[in-house]
Amino acid sequence: MRQEDPVATSAEANAAHDERAMRRAVELAARGLGSTSPNPVVGCVVTDSAGTVVGEGWHERAGGPHAEVHALRAAGEAARGGTAYVTLEPCNHTGRTGPCAQALVEAGIARVVYAVADPNPQASGGAATLRAAGVTAEGGLLQAEAEAGNAAWLTSVRLGRPHVTWKYAATLDGRSAAADGSSRWITSPESRADVHRLRAEADAVLVGGGTLRTDDPHLAVRGIDGATQPLRIAIDTRAALPATARILDDAAPTLLVVGEDADTGHLPGVDLLRLPLTDGRIAVADLLGRLHERGVRALLLEGGPTLAGAFLEASAVDRVVGYLAPALLGAGPAALADAGVTNISQALRLDITEAVPMGPDLRITAVPTTAPKEH
Amino acid sequence: MRQEDPVATSAEANAAHDERAMRRAVELAARGLGSTSPNPVVGCVVTDSAGTVVGEGWHERAGGPHAEVHALRAAGEAARGGTAYVTLEPCNHTGRTGPCAQALVEAGIARVVYAVADPNPQASGGAATLRAAGVTAEGGLLQAEAEAGNAAWLTSVRLGRPHVTWKYAATLDGRSAAADGSSRWITSPESRADVHRLRAEADAVLVGGGTLRTDDPHLAVRGIDGATQPLRIAIDTRAALPATARILDDAAPTLLVVGEDADTGHLPGVDLLRLPLTDGRIAVADLLGRLHERGVRALLLEGGPTLAGAFLEASAVDRVVGYLAPALLGAGPAALADAGVTNISQALRLDITEAVPMGPDLRITAVPTTAPKEH
Repeated sequence: MRQEDPVATSAEANAAHDERAMRRAVELAARGLGSTSPNPVVGCVVTDSAGTVVGEGWHERAGGPHAEVHALRAAGEAARGGTAYVTLEPCNHTGRTGPCAQALVEAGIARVVYAVADPNPQASGGAATLRAAGVTAEGGLLQAEAEAGNAAWLTSVRLGRPHVTWKYAATLDGRSAAADGSSRWITSPESRADVHRLRAEADAVLVGGGTLRTDDPHLAVRGIDGATQPLRIAIDTRAALPATARILDDAAPTLLVVGEDADTGHLPGVDLLRLPLTDGRIAVADLLGRLHERGVRALLLEGGPTLAGAFLEASAVDRVVGYLAPALLGAGPAALADAGVTNISQALRLDITEAVPMGPDLRITAVPTTAPKEH
Repeated sequence: MRQEDPVATSAEANAAHDERAMRRAVELAARGLGSTSPNPVVGCVVTDSAGTVVGEGWHERAGGPHAEVHALRAAGEAARGGTAYVTLEPCNHTGRTGPCAQALVEAGIARVVYAVADPNPQASGGAATLRAAGVTAEGGLLQAEAEAGNAAWLTSVRLGRPHVTWKYAATLDGRSAAADGSSRWITSPESRADVHRLRAEADAVLVGGGTLRTDDPHLAVRGIDGATQPLRIAIDTRAALPATARILDDAAPTLLVVGEDADTGHLPGVDLLRLPLTDGRIAVADLLGRLHERGVRALLLEGGPTLAGAFLEASAVDRVVGYLAPALLGAGPAALADAGVTNISQALRLDITEAVPMGPDLRITAVPTTAPKEH
């Protein structure tokens, strides 16, 4: 008979326990999506010295307490000698809230397990602070899962611009409207509801001038309880938008991006971002840099085809979410216009990460095969 | 304690046994795909009086023995008092082979279970003949599965034209080539190999004049052992094809569809189908009727966008198989051209029946939401 190794078995059980706790922390973190910008989403689970969960928390909104603080408050004295599982390395700096590394030490936590090291130079060093105080600190557990949840924030730290998701809806032959321009509705109610979820998870939603003129879009989140409304951004280089446009209502904040010299006299009180024009167009990198300065970390690009082409040509799309309707049109505008590609060898190649039914439609999520260029 | 009902239990076991045998018969039938035209694919399993499988067979090629005959030969004397599971109602007429209903009676089969009733007036009545001879005959078991395997043949009996599968390859934005016309390769080797499987399962493969001129396609099946080569059909209204075209080699038979008055002097020995032209075009219904007369039951439409549009406008596409490559082009020809749709309300709506990875690509199979119009 094979001799069981009780030490190995115990180590395996501990590893499985750690993983369960961290998976729960990743779940908790996701609850903050769309509400924490410019901060990352973070989840935290605190167990007592016996391994029982005694506290949970997540970062709910920028300016509010960090995940660790929520979890430690819930745990109270039970945290002493226990373990904290955090999706991101605890911060070390005093921002609007105190440093979490210090809070963990003061609560008597004996061991901290985190998933992702903090890439932000201002906040990093938390693990070192913990170790200096005699707390065991281990990184890397479920790193990929935690990074996926924080894709927007990590991208924005790395590239100095928002993480961009391009969302489109099209028929199987790639058209976003019929020949006469009609497009209501190409996709199913399920797909359209899912777009509201994407908006709720983003900090800002962006459309170009063509979509603005053609569709008079509203862009606010509907149908999701407690959702934080994203900033609605429209590019309107000549400020041709009428004051009655739906995007200017008070359902959500709105930012109008206009050319430097645009006449905006008919739009009193509208929040404006003035940018220089080149050949009548705003440069994608300029726009993204300015939005990053304003704290936008996750940007949802909702169209139209010209703007999407400009973003793709600028290597400024980090994720593509396509809602493919099982329909054929044979004519009508394409979902994507010129992206600077003339030969098949220059095609923008992606990896499909998910393809799931959305009612009768298919939702395809894909990411560029190579990391986008830095700006 | 709940009292088991031995009768019900035995009936359930019998039903499960019947289903297993019929499922096997459906599997066997599929082996004939692409080789039995103008006949259906049929599979047959024979069990002895104790329920043990003693014979299997399938219709391998037109003119060869029917599935029942193969299975009865394998079973020999063991068939006496046994059951025959057949995917299609046994035929009752004497064609190139004798009637199967009679063969089953002579072999001493006590019970015949079939999936799909024969819709062909020439062949039907098999069940009645069996019953008249004292054989139990039951229809409808696994009907949907068996019908799916025989979709091409059933469609051709019902509509008097071949079943048409439109196959296309496109990027996520619906383009089949880049702006400069380059398209090698949009899709993955896995997708391209799968197209050869589609060809092998079809009786004929069709391309239009644009594809013929641009791609000089070969259209024969490669890489599948024992595959029956499909008839290669090209529409070339003015017979502009050079005699050196790849489609004219001897890898598979070829049929050139030309206008009534086309000059074909430079193409001696080429099999021609002359059809009248309307506005320079061949009518889809005409073409399909003539191909049906020639015994084509399963037609694979491989392009291009104009021909596909004409087929869709004529409600002559029964299945769509799209190979979607995770790439974006933003410019270049669309996979589908004019199909007579101008408003979204006229969009050709489909139901997605399958979406599966094909290497990095996604293969989407869809069927029209409403049955195509009869011609």
